[in-house]
Amino acid sequence: MPFTLDTLDETIAARQNATADKSYTKSLLDKGAVHCARKFGEEAVETIISAVEGDRAALVKEAGDLLFHLLVLLRASGAPLADVMAELEARSRQSGHAEKAARPNG
Amino acid sequence: MPFTLDTLDETIAARQNATADKSYTKSLLDKGAVHCARKFGEEAVETIISAVEGDRAALVKEAGDLLFHLLVLLRASGAPLADVMAELEARSRQSGHAEKAARPNG
Amino acid sequence: MPFTLDTLDETIAARQNATADKSYTKSLLDKGAVHCARKFGEEAVETIISAVEGDRAALVKEAGDLLFHLLVLLRASGAPLADVMAELEARSRQSGHAEKAARPNG
Amino acid sequence: MPFTLDTLDETIAARQNATADKSYTKSLLDKGAVHCARKFGEEAVETIISAVEGDRAALVKEAGDLLFHLLVLLRASGAPLADVMAELEARSRQSGHAEKAARPNG
Repeated sequence: MPFTLDTLDETIAARQNATADKSYTKSLLDKGAVHCARKFGEEAVETIISAVEGDRAALVKEAGDLLFHLLVLLRASGAPLADVMAELEARSRQSGHAEKAARPNG
Repeated sequence: MPFTLDTLDETIAARQNATADKSYTKSLLDKGAVHCARKFGEEAVETIISAVEGDRAALVKEAGDLLFHLLVLLRASGAPLADVMAELEARSRQSGHAEKAARPNG
Repeated sequence: MPFTLDTLDETIAARQNATADKSYTKSLLDKGAVHCARKFGEEAVETIISAVEGDRAALVKEAGDLLFHLLVLLRASGAPLADVMAELEARSRQSGHAEKAARPNG
Repeated sequence: MPFTLDTLDETIAARQNATADKSYTKSLLDKGAVHCARKFGEEAVETIISAVEGDRAALVKEAGDLLFHLLVLLRASGAPLADVMAELEARSRQSGHAEKAARPNG
């Protein structure tokens, strides 16, 4: 099975519910949505800087950090990743139709 | 087949290569990585604000915008999404091992 | 008299209170603190990008935009610039003392 | 004499040139413009969050941090604060003229 955002989200959920472990994930979630937004913001800054520097290896790592912290932020906020993906899927279809309709020969 | 970031990335790639269409995606990519970083940054700000406001419906939409603009930024930068996912998978395994090793009874 | 942040802040206050004018400043303030935070965030992204690009002329302009939008945000939030400057002055004195105290021969 | 951004900028310059001291300011400047941009970005995120939370006391502190890190970033980038203030003064005059010209009875 391919590794997707869903797989990562399941890992995050598992760590949230683990009673014994003291994971970084759990400590983030325990501090609440505002703290998670702060960490997400820091990763966004790092992502921008790596991209503007043209440092592809750094960008890959920072984008990974960003995705992880986005999923943590969504979970801390009670906003399901599934809703985000459904939104993206709906838009993707819609803009496909829009583009098709705009073509001269349909 | 479930809709994943890969599906979205394929759509973005298709729009980049479309010669006839004048899509928003194509216009972003044509302006280069620095412009894409700027748009990504704006979406990160929106995501933070929605989360701090506790507006879940807005957060779902902004997180969707953010993911779209992250994939566009990666493509404009020549940094493959596959590399980002591989990085996340590797970390996910590693921290699983680390957590397992740290448990008293393995 | 030298042009300082105070001068700029007075200009912003004057535009907020102008009944006839439809200035950009007034329209920002009328939209409230969250909107002003969004615009401030966009300018912060621009500032970061100019700095990382090493484009000094752009950085000067973006830093100007940032300062303007910070003062607007403070005003929209009811947080006086005078309090911010007092905070900076207090810290500046404190760290001067701290540095002095840390020196071998005081 | 009132405490202004210029006063703060002089303090920052003094710390940069101090040979003996190991100040936070000096350590930031020594790490270069990209590092200073990262710290500036983190303070921008904090400023946004305080404003959206409507926490005025926190906003005053975060705006102070932001201004300090902006001046450090300008110095690390070789972009003089004086140029930024001159830009703001020029715009302030210009938009005053523009507003005057737009009024029905001048």
